[in-house]
Amino acid sequence: MSGRLTAVGTGPGDPELLTLKAVRALAEADVVAHFAKRGNDGNARRIVAAHLKPGVIELPLLYPVTTEIDKDHADYGAAITGFYEESAVAVGAHLAAGRNVAVLSEGDPLFYGSYMHLHVRLAHLHPTEVIPGVTAMSGCWSQVGVPIVQGDDVLTVLPGTLPEAELMRRLNDVDAAVIMKVGRNLPKIRRALEASGKFARAIYVERGTMANRTDMRLADKLDDIAPYFSIVLVPGWEGRA
Amino acid sequence: MSGRLTAVGTGPGDPELLTLKAVRALAEADVVAHFAKRGNDGNARRIVAAHLKPGVIELPLLYPVTTEIDKDHADYGAAITGFYEESAVAVGAHLAAGRNVAVLSEGDPLFYGSYMHLHVRLAHLHPTEVIPGVTAMSGCWSQVGVPIVQGDDVLTVLPGTLPEAELMRRLNDVDAAVIMKVGRNLPKIRRALEASGKFARAIYVERGTMANRTDMRLADKLDDIAPYFSIVLVPGWEGRA
Repeated sequence: MSGRLTAVGTGPGDPELLTLKAVRALAEADVVAHFAKRGNDGNARRIVAAHLKPGVIELPLLYPVTTEIDKDHADYGAAITGFYEESAVAVGAHLAAGRNVAVLSEGDPLFYGSYMHLHVRLAHLHPTEVIPGVTAMSGCWSQVGVPIVQGDDVLTVLPGTLPEAELMRRLNDVDAAVIMKVGRNLPKIRRALEASGKFARAIYVERGTMANRTDMRLADKLDDIAPYFSIVLVPGWEGRA
Repeated sequence: MSGRLTAVGTGPGDPELLTLKAVRALAEADVVAHFAKRGNDGNARRIVAAHLKPGVIELPLLYPVTTEIDKDHADYGAAITGFYEESAVAVGAHLAAGRNVAVLSEGDPLFYGSYMHLHVRLAHLHPTEVIPGVTAMSGCWSQVGVPIVQGDDVLTVLPGTLPEAELMRRLNDVDAAVIMKVGRNLPKIRRALEASGKFARAIYVERGTMANRTDMRLADKLDDIAPYFSIVLVPGWEGRA
């Protein structure tokens, strides 16, 4: 009999932002898998560390490449697709052997999460459940204490990896925005925000809800050094109460 | 000494989707406030029921109007603003008396939540913390098991209350969309989805993650009866793996 595949959203970073359901899934898992860079435990693993059962089988899924190759390069696509295939085979073997597998996913599994590459390969073959988590963006605007949208506001979530002209065009047309995947894209993001008249109200958040979190008005950030998982918020709800 | 104001995101409906931090905040609260319609406990109150301490002071904040008056009518604005003012006074009185107040908020407090009307009136006066929650939309796409965005996808969150032409224009220009506040707006939402060529992949979710949840392709929904808090998903991530 097949084991159960459970995607466990771990939330944005603060271990207390795990859900009760995530904690239960970890208690019921025979195998805990997580995506990470080689040589790095990964945030998801750190977030759940206190809830891993003694003796649980751990299955780290280590990206063969991350930022070494440009993501538009054919080699990147081939390497990463092969990696997802192998990962699905490894997880699937445990499921076929009747073991319950929990796959950790930072934030929310189906919202820009690597887990979905396993989901599309395995969910039709095994009993599967996705446990949603608090997203990184919710963690960030809650940390700052800034209402992001209200009433008829439109929120747009933009990967910072988009071309500058596209970022600008979209920022021109929103009430509120969240820009994900900031990292090395920060200079481009600044220019797009300035061109769309939204630079003054943009807020920069780094490692939202984690112990070493930080946030500031983007205008007050004097360098362009930002981790990939930092976020820029453009709150929509202004001057209303 | 002032008490502490804590916004508690309760998640989308399943009580197991409360965070550990939310449960702790409820244990530390002297007063638990929640917004609700008159004659209705409200979902947030139901979600946390098992975690309310015996003897905790409850402070229901009952909307004076909901759908009886059109929201663009001046009377609605006056009634609702007065209500938020009075609610802030009631919560503020407990804080001034040194009592910790937890304000329940379905989903995530600063994401279309009524809590923010208290936040803007009280957070600069009292020690305040916002505990993010799993959003209704995350609950919905996890229930359906549909990856919503990946890679460079843009996600737009649209209130179903927007004018039809505006909904259509925005739907024309997205990879993925979430349409909130469906309710009586469903016929208009159907037309906007059809006009933008996204009707076939739209998914309708009602009472996401709750015991009486349901979901289906919107094309398979034969009536236009939908609760206000139902959601339509337009997944962005298609044909990729």
